[in-house]
Amino acid sequence: MLVFKNYFSTDFCASEEKLEEIIFEKMLSEKDSGEIGYYTLHESQKETIKEIEEFKKSNIPYSKSLIKNVIVIGIGGSSLGAKAVDNMLCSLENRNEIELIFLENCDPVNLDRELEGIEAKESLVITISKSGGTIETLSLTKYILERFDLKFGSEEIKNHFVVITEEGSPLEQFAKENNIKAFFLPKNVGGRFSVFSAVGLLPLSLVGYDVEKILDGQKEICSRFFAKELPELMKKAHFYTKYAHKYSINVLFSYSSTLRELNSWYVQLWGESLGKINAQESRVGLTPIGLVGSVDQHSFLQLIVQGPEDKSVTFLKIKDFKNNKTIPNITIPKLEKTDYVNTKMMQELLNAQCDATAETLIEQGVPVDVMEIDCLSEKSCGELIYYFELLTSCSGAFLGVNTYDQPGVEFGKKRLVEKFS
Amino acid sequence: MLVFKNYFSTDFCASEEKLEEIIFEKMLSEKDSGEIGYYTLHESQKETIKEIEEFKKSNIPYSKSLIKNVIVIGIGGSSLGAKAVDNMLCSLENRNEIELIFLENCDPVNLDRELEGIEAKESLVITISKSGGTIETLSLTKYILERFDLKFGSEEIKNHFVVITEEGSPLEQFAKENNIKAFFLPKNVGGRFSVFSAVGLLPLSLVGYDVEKILDGQKEICSRFFAKELPELMKKAHFYTKYAHKYSINVLFSYSSTLRELNSWYVQLWGESLGKINAQESRVGLTPIGLVGSVDQHSFLQLIVQGPEDKSVTFLKIKDFKNNKTIPNITIPKLEKTDYVNTKMMQELLNAQCDATAETLIEQGVPVDVMEIDCLSEKSCGELIYYFELLTSCSGAFLGVNTYDQPGVEFGKKRLVEKFS
Repeated sequence: MLVFKNYFSTDFCASEEKLEEIIFEKMLSEKDSGEIGYYTLHESQKETIKEIEEFKKSNIPYSKSLIKNVIVIGIGGSSLGAKAVDNMLCSLENRNEIELIFLENCDPVNLDRELEGIEAKESLVITISKSGGTIETLSLTKYILERFDLKFGSEEIKNHFVVITEEGSPLEQFAKENNIKAFFLPKNVGGRFSVFSAVGLLPLSLVGYDVEKILDGQKEICSRFFAKELPELMKKAHFYTKYAHKYSINVLFSYSSTLRELNSWYVQLWGESLGKINAQESRVGLTPIGLVGSVDQHSFLQLIVQGPEDKSVTFLKIKDFKNNKTIPNITIPKLEKTDYVNTKMMQELLNAQCDATAETLIEQGVPVDVMEIDCLSEKSCGELIYYFELLTSCSGAFLGVNTYDQPGVEFGKKRLVEKFS
Repeated sequence: MLVFKNYFSTDFCASEEKLEEIIFEKMLSEKDSGEIGYYTLHESQKETIKEIEEFKKSNIPYSKSLIKNVIVIGIGGSSLGAKAVDNMLCSLENRNEIELIFLENCDPVNLDRELEGIEAKESLVITISKSGGTIETLSLTKYILERFDLKFGSEEIKNHFVVITEEGSPLEQFAKENNIKAFFLPKNVGGRFSVFSAVGLLPLSLVGYDVEKILDGQKEICSRFFAKELPELMKKAHFYTKYAHKYSINVLFSYSSTLRELNSWYVQLWGESLGKINAQESRVGLTPIGLVGSVDQHSFLQLIVQGPEDKSVTFLKIKDFKNNKTIPNITIPKLEKTDYVNTKMMQELLNAQCDATAETLIEQGVPVDVMEIDCLSEKSCGELIYYFELLTSCSGAFLGVNTYDQPGVEFGKKRLVEKFS
């Protein structure tokens, strides 16, 4: 179970508490009206899971265990979620041997590196684009179609290529005309909130994860939040947005290398959802930063401790790593001072570092909160991701922005096209 | 050659320009007096390069080409630099097949992942610690000594284990007593400025890079800066620090996946050097953020474009990627609107995206500067890294901090020890 605690004062006055009530109602209405689809993916995607199971049986190379690589072509919300989950859960026993490769950037060096030794006949390519117009995704798709010699209408393209898109999009039509399987992203689910739709569930299921359990995690937090059992979540969003001018930077300090990609997913969710012009025509937003502990204690911590007091810090820890390692009882002469952790488990050191750093910052008056998951499991992953999604919706409502659009990224696109005309 | 241009106003008044003069003199004196050693590593490390060449010949498994993995155990300044360079240059022809593995975090899952299939007899382990007291580094070293069965005083430890430390440290003494080769980090070079000492040069040379050319890059920028041929660098530091309250966040937007780790290296350098209590007892500093283009256009750009106006942005691009790829001339029906890049090179798209985004932000009044390197080469890498180091020294001098210490990270350490007693 996900547990979390705020170490900052959340005593708000009566009128402010009333605002919390209004925001709660707004979210409830977004959910119940179906206006915003991510809230209930644990219900709506049950069908998608069946469809995925069906696909795994009917796709010839996959069902014959000939697939060694699943290549996801997508960018932003189309890749960050599945990457975060796979990075987090890759030590699970049910994770199979299939490599999960993400092609996001039109970087020639990186492309060579990612595709080294990869053969078409052992690969399943998934192109993910809501509208079909993302220039990187389409360019990389064309590159792969050529490199893998997947011809339109051929048996090979049918067996080795899948798309995930919005129903009725040009990409769907293309798929239909070429006997290519298409999965759908619901219209009411935005890219960065789409990890628990086919966008994430398909690749994650293909590499062996139990995606139903992920949705169970989402369901659990959903029930608790909408039963008003998670007041700390609302309070945190309230505090963050009320003090957005003072604490304009929110650090997510995750104590495990397995959470590095989750940080990147969070950075997109938080930055792109909240950095907006609000209803009062003000430019608002909060700047997210993802850190990995203990590594970044040796990189960024100095700035938090002695630099400008403009940061809040969320510590995220894992209670129990299942595959553990002990620090051997070896003494290096003259370095006996490092022996205090000998015979301890590595996770004990890692979590003690998290606690020591959190306590130090709390003592300094930095707004700190601590989140802890039981262990690295599908369910805890679902809980965690949904927690951040709800926090984002709450915060967006407090700031008075449209949490679900991204008008600012359109500005450069026209200019890009002009450069090639 | 590294070129760069500031797209913000650097018209300072006469007294401010005088300050630039004072800061230049301070840096010159730090360099010439030998107080700060990183400035002249291109001179002082020539001997180290000879020592490395000697080691490559005398180390039995390396000289017999039996080494398949170089395992660097270090954290923060002991790992970020070499990792950045290897990530940037790994497509060079002289990069050999040896895997370069970095063990930084006491994370049991990650450790399993990094060491999967790695055998002791094919590995060379390098422990890097200036003082020898870094708890993660020492714990991981003990773990590897046990896992690889490297016994004190044995032939194996002599052949497969190396340390990089400060002369006279306990780690050096340990090395001496066990016939282990020790390389030295000069006393006047801090960890995060140490990439062009043995800390970076040894692992980078072992995997095939021409490290002399890296130092040539540093030398070039050093000559130009101290001949006052790079006024834009000083002006940029001046602007950043003068407007630190307004633009408190500095984004490095690097347009290539090969620069991802360089971003992480920069984040440490900038954050840990400048986030300090200054001579006037004020908490000062600038918050660094590293982004990768074009990927993060789909993640963070919205926040820059429409969120709070608290960010400056440095665009970093590569003029010529040598291994290039063409976007095939394939039309996907109904998606003809993506055909405008067909037959173009991927690097053209990537760099056009960089230009389009930079122009959009300049038009919006965001303080933007653009840096460009010729190509991915050892020399350009040396230029780039030294540019950022000089920029950090300049900025630290303007802010009135000690750029080279990190007192803030000590606070949590005592508390950590207490948790185990």
